[in-house]
Amino acid sequence: MDLQVNQEIKETALAHEGAIETDAVIVGAGPVGLFQVFELGLLEIKAHIIDSLAYPGGQCIELYPDKPIYDIPAVPVCTGKELTDNLMKQIEPFGATFHLGQEVTTVEGLDDGRFFVATSKGTTFLTKTIFIAGGVGSFQPRTLKVDGIEKYDGTQLHYRVRNPEQFAGKNLVVVGGGDSALDWALNFVNDGPNKAESVILVHRRDGFRAAPANVAKMKELCDNYEMQFIVGQVTDIVEDGGTLNAVKVTGGDGVTRVVPCDQVLVFFGLSPKLGPIAEWGLNIDRKQIVVDTEKFQTSTPGIFAVGDVNVYPGKKKLILSGFHEAALAAFGAAPYIFPEKRIHLQYTTTSPKLHKVLGVESPVFD
Amino acid sequence: MDLQVNQEIKETALAHEGAIETDAVIVGAGPVGLFQVFELGLLEIKAHIIDSLAYPGGQCIELYPDKPIYDIPAVPVCTGKELTDNLMKQIEPFGATFHLGQEVTTVEGLDDGRFFVATSKGTTFLTKTIFIAGGVGSFQPRTLKVDGIEKYDGTQLHYRVRNPEQFAGKNLVVVGGGDSALDWALNFVNDGPNKAESVILVHRRDGFRAAPANVAKMKELCDNYEMQFIVGQVTDIVEDGGTLNAVKVTGGDGVTRVVPCDQVLVFFGLSPKLGPIAEWGLNIDRKQIVVDTEKFQTSTPGIFAVGDVNVYPGKKKLILSGFHEAALAAFGAAPYIFPEKRIHLQYTTTSPKLHKVLGVESPVFD
Repeated sequence: MDLQVNQEIKETALAHEGAIETDAVIVGAGPVGLFQVFELGLLEIKAHIIDSLAYPGGQCIELYPDKPIYDIPAVPVCTGKELTDNLMKQIEPFGATFHLGQEVTTVEGLDDGRFFVATSKGTTFLTKTIFIAGGVGSFQPRTLKVDGIEKYDGTQLHYRVRNPEQFAGKNLVVVGGGDSALDWALNFVNDGPNKAESVILVHRRDGFRAAPANVAKMKELCDNYEMQFIVGQVTDIVEDGGTLNAVKVTGGDGVTRVVPCDQVLVFFGLSPKLGPIAEWGLNIDRKQIVVDTEKFQTSTPGIFAVGDVNVYPGKKKLILSGFHEAALAAFGAAPYIFPEKRIHLQYTTTSPKLHKVLGVESPVFD
Repeated sequence: MDLQVNQEIKETALAHEGAIETDAVIVGAGPVGLFQVFELGLLEIKAHIIDSLAYPGGQCIELYPDKPIYDIPAVPVCTGKELTDNLMKQIEPFGATFHLGQEVTTVEGLDDGRFFVATSKGTTFLTKTIFIAGGVGSFQPRTLKVDGIEKYDGTQLHYRVRNPEQFAGKNLVVVGGGDSALDWALNFVNDGPNKAESVILVHRRDGFRAAPANVAKMKELCDNYEMQFIVGQVTDIVEDGGTLNAVKVTGGDGVTRVVPCDQVLVFFGLSPKLGPIAEWGLNIDRKQIVVDTEKFQTSTPGIFAVGDVNVYPGKKKLILSGFHEAALAAFGAAPYIFPEKRIHLQYTTTSPKLHKVLGVESPVFD
């Protein structure tokens, strides 16, 4: 998003055309971001929640949906998926709005004390508070490190397949040894509307972290000359007048060969990056956002940071710590939203008011 | 426990006769004390846990075993009993030793850096670290506020019935309107080995917070002149040569009558008190123990305080905050127990070492 477009979006938002006015924007829908909805909800603060992934759960879902977690207090064992499902159930009463598959690209303080927030999908907000629950950052594809190749990103170099039809009839080099590389290579070899002219798979070794059936299928296609597999690494590119014509692949034997192609697809997996958050002007220490331990507020009043993304003396990157931080951040934020109101701690077990916001019946106590 | 006995116990303990040598003593077996066992266990620190109640669970079990709690993260709803049961299951792998029905009466720092700890039952410990998870304090009976009566505590005035046989054949005044008052009054009226000579129940109003069947039974016994019920409050005592001969009961009508008796049993319920912890020489602020937010350590190195008993800027008395505090306190304590070892944060999802201490199988990751 270039600066001019950004400026236009901001002006539109300031004119209140299409911008969502809200009390709280949560950046990150991992377990801590989800629990932030709950803690804000108990204080009757409604939230919008943004995540770069297409679904809630963050790392828990992206990295270990089926692996057991043992250190959630009072939950002897659960998987990342179960943890996410339980949190989604817990926050149901609060009706948070999810904005998924988009990253926050812009955060700017306004004269009235609010923040202007814009995402990569063009969603805009005017909000009183922001909660960064960004975990280890947003998941970004690991990139191919070859001099000069980055300028083809999005035209002849791809880390994601957004429109498969653009590769139909083309000569493709697919780089990587995981499921994504194998799946897409097979997809473009197979007969179908998106069948490529040719597919060459490049991987640094003759071993794959992918479904064995797909590896077998790939080898069968190679045996039938329907595709090709080269053991090696992409070390250089061949260009002509701003067009990428070929990549150079260096094998384990030290021999480099030129592999002509129209499009290069790279699948090296996802790696977390702090991303645009690093540009928001917050006090950062070794890629983590510095907060106090009273409110978990950043160096910018009204912006809080909770979970793995923050740092303070004693910080441990534990989900249960993020839960505590979310609770105190909610209390810390309340005065920005209700400047007139004194906020008292109430207990979910006994407070009829909290029972009302939770949508449960108040038991009759004698 | 008087000072001389205390000194004897200490000398015996220092001679290592019968004292339990341990790395960690946890004071309080409420949810946060229980989770402290877990966090210490992950760091391979074994703990002994002491509570004044006869069972684990603290307030959750004492005050709201069957009432729903909604704000335990990732647990949309559970009762105090379920929370306790789940925590007991979670700490099972760590084999903590429970010392229940006893209070810590003595804590003293020793020259070798350890602490001497003694309980009201005479259990003694030599420990490297102490974790106070005392909640709102230990549950103490609410006392009868009458000038001069306190000197009969334990001889003619009782807040608990330890030996029912001592009341056999005596003239009893039972004060209170709850289940305990009714139960004991009926118990001493009924034929049996502990039958009293006479039982007079005193309660400030003609209404009871007790099982209706027992209230009906009491009224029937009164109608049959087998016991007596007086509406009123104990306002004074009648003494003769160091013996309590009678209590004065003032009724709602302002009339005071003298009620002769041998023994007074008072059941006003339990009230939490910080108790002996207040005497340990720790920095206290309005009945709460001051801690840092890095290790949740008190003003005495090696003594940590977690959960509702502690205070720091931003503190909220939430169970989930106690869980976080217990985690950081465990890391803060580790150097006292393993001075040579560098402690790294490991994750229960991925660490084969943690799987070993948890007693679960390490999944095979590719």
